Amino acid sequence: MSSCFNGGITVSLFGESHGKGIGVVLDNLPSGEIIDLERIGAFMARRAPKKDGTSTTRSEKDIPEILSGLYEGKTTGTPLAAVIMNTDQHSGDYGNISHIARPAHADYTGFLRYDDANDPRGGGHFSGRITAPLCFAGAVCGQILEHQGITTGAHILSIKGISDEHFDPVNVTAEQLELVKSRPFPTLSEFTETEMREVINAARMDLNSVGGIVECAAVGFPAGIGSPMLDGLENIISRIVFAIPAVKGIEFGNGFGCADMFGSENNDEFTIKDGKVITKTNNHGGILGGISSGMPIIFRAAFKPTPSILRPQNSVDFKSMTEQELIIKGRHDPCVVPRAVPCVEAALNIALVSALLEDPRIRR
Amino acid sequence: MSSCFNGGITVSLFGESHGKGIGVVLDNLPSGEIIDLERIGAFMARRAPKKDGTSTTRSEKDIPEILSGLYEGKTTGTPLAAVIMNTDQHSGDYGNISHIARPAHADYTGFLRYDDANDPRGGGHFSGRITAPLCFAGAVCGQILEHQGITTGAHILSIKGISDEHFDPVNVTAEQLELVKSRPFPTLSEFTETEMREVINAARMDLNSVGGIVECAAVGFPAGIGSPMLDGLENIISRIVFAIPAVKGIEFGNGFGCADMFGSENNDEFTIKDGKVITKTNNHGGILGGISSGMPIIFRAAFKPTPSILRPQNSVDFKSMTEQELIIKGRHDPCVVPRAVPCVEAALNIALVSALLEDPRIRR
Amino acid sequence: MSSCFNGGITVSLFGESHGKGIGVVLDNLPSGEIIDLERIGAFMARRAPKKDGTSTTRSEKDIPEILSGLYEGKTTGTPLAAVIMNTDQHSGDYGNISHIARPAHADYTGFLRYDDANDPRGGGHFSGRITAPLCFAGAVCGQILEHQGITTGAHILSIKGISDEHFDPVNVTAEQLELVKSRPFPTLSEFTETEMREVINAARMDLNSVGGIVECAAVGFPAGIGSPMLDGLENIISRIVFAIPAVKGIEFGNGFGCADMFGSENNDEFTIKDGKVITKTNNHGGILGGISSGMPIIFRAAFKPTPSILRPQNSVDFKSMTEQELIIKGRHDPCVVPRAVPCVEAALNIALVSALLEDPRIRR
Amino acid sequence: MSSCFNGGITVSLFGESHGKGIGVVLDNLPSGEIIDLERIGAFMARRAPKKDGTSTTRSEKDIPEILSGLYEGKTTGTPLAAVIMNTDQHSGDYGNISHIARPAHADYTGFLRYDDANDPRGGGHFSGRITAPLCFAGAVCGQILEHQGITTGAHILSIKGISDEHFDPVNVTAEQLELVKSRPFPTLSEFTETEMREVINAARMDLNSVGGIVECAAVGFPAGIGSPMLDGLENIISRIVFAIPAVKGIEFGNGFGCADMFGSENNDEFTIKDGKVITKTNNHGGILGGISSGMPIIFRAAFKPTPSILRPQNSVDFKSMTEQELIIKGRHDPCVVPRAVPCVEAALNIALVSALLEDPRIRR
Repeated sequence: MSSCFNGGITVSLFGESHGKGIGVVLDNLPSGEIIDLERIGAFMARRAPKKDGTSTTRSEKDIPEILSGLYEGKTTGTPLAAVIMNTDQHSGDYGNISHIARPAHADYTGFLRYDDANDPRGGGHFSGRITAPLCFAGAVCGQILEHQGITTGAHILSIKGISDEHFDPVNVTAEQLELVKSRPFPTLSEFTETEMREVINAARMDLNSVGGIVECAAVGFPAGIGSPMLDGLENIISRIVFAIPAVKGIEFGNGFGCADMFGSENNDEFTIKDGKVITKTNNHGGILGGISSGMPIIFRAAFKPTPSILRPQNSVDFKSMTEQELIIKGRHDPCVVPRAVPCVEAALNIALVSALLEDPRIRR
Repeated sequence: MSSCFNGGITVSLFGESHGKGIGVVLDNLPSGEIIDLERIGAFMARRAPKKDGTSTTRSEKDIPEILSGLYEGKTTGTPLAAVIMNTDQHSGDYGNISHIARPAHADYTGFLRYDDANDPRGGGHFSGRITAPLCFAGAVCGQILEHQGITTGAHILSIKGISDEHFDPVNVTAEQLELVKSRPFPTLSEFTETEMREVINAARMDLNSVGGIVECAAVGFPAGIGSPMLDGLENIISRIVFAIPAVKGIEFGNGFGCADMFGSENNDEFTIKDGKVITKTNNHGGILGGISSGMPIIFRAAFKPTPSILRPQNSVDFKSMTEQELIIKGRHDPCVVPRAVPCVEAALNIALVSALLEDPRIRR
Repeated sequence: MSSCFNGGITVSLFGESHGKGIGVVLDNLPSGEIIDLERIGAFMARRAPKKDGTSTTRSEKDIPEILSGLYEGKTTGTPLAAVIMNTDQHSGDYGNISHIARPAHADYTGFLRYDDANDPRGGGHFSGRITAPLCFAGAVCGQILEHQGITTGAHILSIKGISDEHFDPVNVTAEQLELVKSRPFPTLSEFTETEMREVINAARMDLNSVGGIVECAAVGFPAGIGSPMLDGLENIISRIVFAIPAVKGIEFGNGFGCADMFGSENNDEFTIKDGKVITKTNNHGGILGGISSGMPIIFRAAFKPTPSILRPQNSVDFKSMTEQELIIKGRHDPCVVPRAVPCVEAALNIALVSALLEDPRIRR
Repeated sequence: MSSCFNGGITVSLFGESHGKGIGVVLDNLPSGEIIDLERIGAFMARRAPKKDGTSTTRSEKDIPEILSGLYEGKTTGTPLAAVIMNTDQHSGDYGNISHIARPAHADYTGFLRYDDANDPRGGGHFSGRITAPLCFAGAVCGQILEHQGITTGAHILSIKGISDEHFDPVNVTAEQLELVKSRPFPTLSEFTETEMREVINAARMDLNSVGGIVECAAVGFPAGIGSPMLDGLENIISRIVFAIPAVKGIEFGNGFGCADMFGSENNDEFTIKDGKVITKTNNHGGILGGISSGMPIIFRAAFKPTPSILRPQNSVDFKSMTEQELIIKGRHDPCVVPRAVPCVEAALNIALVSALLEDPRIRR
């Protein structure tokens, strides 16, 4: 399969950027979970393009219509399907580049994979637009997590050299995670926001783009959930996070920083606090042996700069097999990272609900 | 599930560190693939403990016995099962720590996950020893890849601040990948080896341990293999790589480096060389939209320092719920990275064979 | 999971009888397959209610809208999603029975399974209406099979003691399978049709219902496809056929008839005809060891009488836990078998495409 | 995949009839389940060849060695692997038939499927011998079911026209199910046993074989377990039962008998007994809409006559493509049905544990 995740729940994404509609089917959700549609909308609005110069000017309403699986405000437990009809399509913009490979895009690899039958308009199924139903799925899962006392959240950790503060890996709270969600530009520090906006705007003015890092956390997740080896929390989270286009790396806890550390520095000593086992530090990012430790789950995902830049680039027409100069038109985010924040959160939410449902104990 | 990977092939790992045996079942392998058992043994020897002070002194023969799936030197296409009987067990060494959580180990999380029924001796199923059958599976898959003209390899990129050269992401060759496999300490540069050995030995003398980074590559992998979204090459590779205990991060191509780059720097321009579409640079690590581009596949995995250090550590007895000082005994690698190199390669081999078999075209 | 099939292809069904819409997502289809939408419509029309007294008078247009996965008349290879909006809903008819269990229906078991949160209107996700997207999926798969020279078809073998002829298990042809599809009442013999219609009408007049058997066949399916043990053709076909509500049995080739036979009678001797290995008889139904033999695939599925009968029945209100008399209203088929014929065919089509794609050789 | 079942638990079977060993890996079992190895042995002894003329004279000890997953008598929750080494191999017996297709066997289809690379000795992976690890897995699952108050059992319902009594579908008890397990020839009626033995012996003397039907039941299984559509109890049970070689049909409750019934006859009316909802009759076989109703689960599986008969048969050498007379030697059961009884039970046990673990509520 390709666009279907199967674990404790099943998530089937579908759609192409300029097709009739995009959406998702969620199977195996627990029944009777109250879903607040307004808050689903708020979650998705965080991913929607902004009018502040940081993102594309394409304006999709992106209001998902729920076709099944919700009855009298609660999940039925049978498949929940949601569809977003595409309305604001400017397919014309893409007419002239259909066989010239856009660098860092999947035009060429998609052409090979699907023998030239895939929908090339706007990236087709490779479009970042498919993260809209991913966010819908993540928003539904987020509410299910909340019913268990679990809160997730994410922020922009860095963009092109400008760094935000880190979440405190030991003491990050649900309140902090909620607070950053309410910010139009999700950084922990307001100073960082200003600098990052400047970097993004400068890149846009310069017909360029920039990359960055998103940091994501979960608090309240119970200890003892997950599995060793191939279905651990790290395995599942990373598998889903890499479904977000432009992600090129993921690390948990100290991550790549581990490479420069001694065991005596990196090991998190256990202690008892309020009758509960905790660790004094949280270099392990809340996961040991694929299983949650009860400490906050912390990970970071690296995003490449938006591939679509408006400068001329050298490329190849892969049908005529000739070298060509490419001029990309259309509307593009100079930086995907601000809009990627809820996507990373959505990926985590899906992974955590899946892990909870695979566990033999967490149940109604 | 937990210790079972299901894709184009199925890999079911089993075993506990101090149980009767460990092993793996590989299902859905192509039939008729010639398997050279001596070279399987050579692959596994690269993972086996060394007598050079960099690893544990536990000496396991680790010769897998193949029970099924191989007939007259070729895969039958029906399940291939291999078993390694445990012979050199010093369970006594672990007697006194069974309920005091070793920091950075899965003792406490495993206790919670399995309600105190899991085998605690030597880490049980969480033991790094389960990477032996993973390597067996990877060695078998590596030979299947070779039959398709694909070569994979890995080296130690860094240990505690000492860095090896990188693979040349555009020009790395099969010969280079084979060469580093033949080295007793798998670095590209011999100078690096000396420095790294010193760092590891110093840590060992200091009753400490160190982490590091493994870089891994594949050349000859055909373009157009993989899928967008949830079953892309990055999703599958990362899912399997995180099955290796101690991995805390993974990145493809430029990975986390993307965060500090402009699109104009990171985008790899396409060109034509010898009638083939290639990219001039390979910041994308050979994967675009989850699908291979035909360029070398390049990724890096970060390993935490070995959790088992011989210094006293503060911890908790999670059965009596009391704080305790912990003294770890037993035999432990001061750095897992050298032995992790073939494990990372094995994970890649499994992922690539799986992806090839899921593709609708690669076939006999 | 529950409403999602994962094999060589993935099929995710969704929807409730009286919800907004029903549909299906097909993932991992081969790309570039030409799909004729008119013929999809013709396939689905065979399942639609008839105005001849044999079925419910509910009239759904059941025209599926394809949202993704089809571009310029061909499959893109990325997920194909189709939605049927519900338009002719008479939910009121069901108001008074919501907590009185209709015998032989899933009201009570669904109530328990979903803790009273499932949509009870018209059976919700348990409704036979969900076979409409199943037929859509089967119709798409049927066209993919045709491109490989494979034809499937089915007919009513028996209804309440009235038996049609059997397919000739050795000599059934694609033409015969096509012919029976064109008949408004799919029997091989026209005489049988008259008798069966009488039995159904008599049951309807008597406020009763009747069951029956559907026989299904595939010709042109290549030999050597399938697998032993758990993913054989019989395993896959039976798993999908039991997704059709009201199926209570399935048998391949001689099926239950085997119980009364000697090996010397049941064994199909091999011979050579036109340079090809065939069997002289086809008691094995085209499948040996889970793998196709090249002979026609033949199986039969047993359907129970429609549970909804308009006679008073004794039952239980499972919320108040009181015994109650039940009077079912609404529109119901006195016999589901005629409309089930394309459903069984659809199940076979999905199973065969899945098996072809799981095989290591059948490819573009 | 082929020999791997993935649901609430994962079952990976492996081995070839004349290879080194056969076995199974069970993943995702609940931890802490006490397993009585003597009773596992007793279960497997029911499948082992008998010395009473009804089965092959091959004598395998078939004592499984457990390599992992069991610690201090309890499941660890990590993969449970069991191996049976092959000891009594007479490969010579099969030497002369390796390329002449045995009618009703998978020699020819296996040859095609695996391109002549599969192990042909004694049927290789297609051998009925692989039901030994299936029975091991079923025996383990049976003990897990018992811990939940669930009992399963099966008996020979018919052999070549001789019929045993049916289980009483409403009132069958755990005691009756246990009783039939203790009988050397598992029929409900002792008279039937004598007649069936005569039929089998007559077939053996006549160098022939006979088929039959096994009836299987579960009592104590909680109501509300299972799912509609593709992962219902019928789907899962049938998928696993068809893994038993020689099964050609399965039916639940009234099964094929439904075809001749009126709805008014087949519908099971609900009533209340001892404060519990039950049905007065059990034509539905304990499953409605894929979900358990709380009534006994009842199904029947049809077995074809043993393909290996000692009479000359016409066949084809599929390598030389010539017609040949075939004389089968070796040791073969004249009827597989008596030994198939525990296999069917094992399949049910695996299916029921899997369904329990997929349910969101049944947990420790």
